[in-house]
Amino acid sequence: MIKTLNVRTGSRCQMIDVTDEVQAAVREAGLVDGGALCYVPHTTAGVTIQENADPDVVHDILWKLGQLIPRDDSGFRHSEGNSDAHLKCSLIGMSQTVPVEGGRLVLGTWQGIYFCEFDGPRHRQLLVRCLAGSP
Amino acid sequence: MIKTLNVRTGSRCQMIDVTDEVQAAVREAGLVDGGALCYVPHTTAGVTIQENADPDVVHDILWKLGQLIPRDDSGFRHSEGNSDAHLKCSLIGMSQTVPVEGGRLVLGTWQGIYFCEFDGPRHRQLLVRCLAGSP
Amino acid sequence: MIKTLNVRTGSRCQMIDVTDEVQAAVREAGLVDGGALCYVPHTTAGVTIQENADPDVVHDILWKLGQLIPRDDSGFRHSEGNSDAHLKCSLIGMSQTVPVEGGRLVLGTWQGIYFCEFDGPRHRQLLVRCLAGSP
Repeated sequence: MIKTLNVRTGSRCQMIDVTDEVQAAVREAGLVDGGALCYVPHTTAGVTIQENADPDVVHDILWKLGQLIPRDDSGFRHSEGNSDAHLKCSLIGMSQTVPVEGGRLVLGTWQGIYFCEFDGPRHRQLLVRCLAGSP
Repeated sequence: MIKTLNVRTGSRCQMIDVTDEVQAAVREAGLVDGGALCYVPHTTAGVTIQENADPDVVHDILWKLGQLIPRDDSGFRHSEGNSDAHLKCSLIGMSQTVPVEGGRLVLGTWQGIYFCEFDGPRHRQLLVRCLAGSP
Repeated sequence: MIKTLNVRTGSRCQMIDVTDEVQAAVREAGLVDGGALCYVPHTTAGVTIQENADPDVVHDILWKLGQLIPRDDSGFRHSEGNSDAHLKCSLIGMSQTVPVEGGRLVLGTWQGIYFCEFDGPRHRQLLVRCLAGSP
């Protein structure tokens, strides 16, 4: 069973904490021990794990990424004007697997799972697929 | 069972759509529900998921990566002259896991799986390992 | 069962080869065929696969990353002064899955698994979770 989470983003670049929703999907799937595959079925959005304490961390990540990969780079050919978002997505990644033990996501103290929007605002999805642990 | 796909690249930097080959490997393995681990056993090539509609997207990704990480940076020490390729590979990633449901890769509408060559042309491999879904 | 590896890093930015420790964890878990999920429960460290032959490769990766994402960028807001480390970690990635066959990690000839410290020196952990292969 794949659980589809709906994510509504509100700006062009945004990182949204979806940890609770992923945890709920794992609980619903009944996984005890294994891995939670978080997968983004888009080409201008990604998923990563980051600090959920100080919101300045998320700000700094998005700001520096935008400085390295500006939207209006004159070398881009893609006519939709969102090549920056495609590259950011491949750098951040669109699939992350988080260990699960005793039905709980095994995250570090400061870790949260973040949906990363790079070309919003849009209605987006995050897929959660539970993978079996070895016996 | 691990399925080995052979990929022949034709230039130094190139992204090749291998979606059909990965789907065939999943079918051959008989996986119904779970995940398809796509793994690159090289250190100057990677694998990502990207848009398969407009080839300009792939062009822009490779072009901008090359601008950020030029081959002939004078600070590089590695004598083979391909340190740029090593870094690109670690940024793009060498392992991606795609959800599988009902025997099919669950990809977004515009998504394709791309083998990413950063130091070709070469004969390369992509490994596909099917992972079991939780019951 | 999740196996926790303890990693002691010795400088601010460092890549440490943990291949042998991950292989031992896979052996201990008794996994024959499947995948070894390597997961970093931190937000300023990551894990990647890279060349284990010439140490200049690791030098060049860390050097170039530091050039692209300098620690003291005046645009950073996060008061701990390690926003560079947070971004590097999300770019390199904190979860990698390596195929396992016959009880052995399936790595390419020149590949090693590297714990990537971006804000050390610290006592760190790497989690290894074995995932079941499909039958």
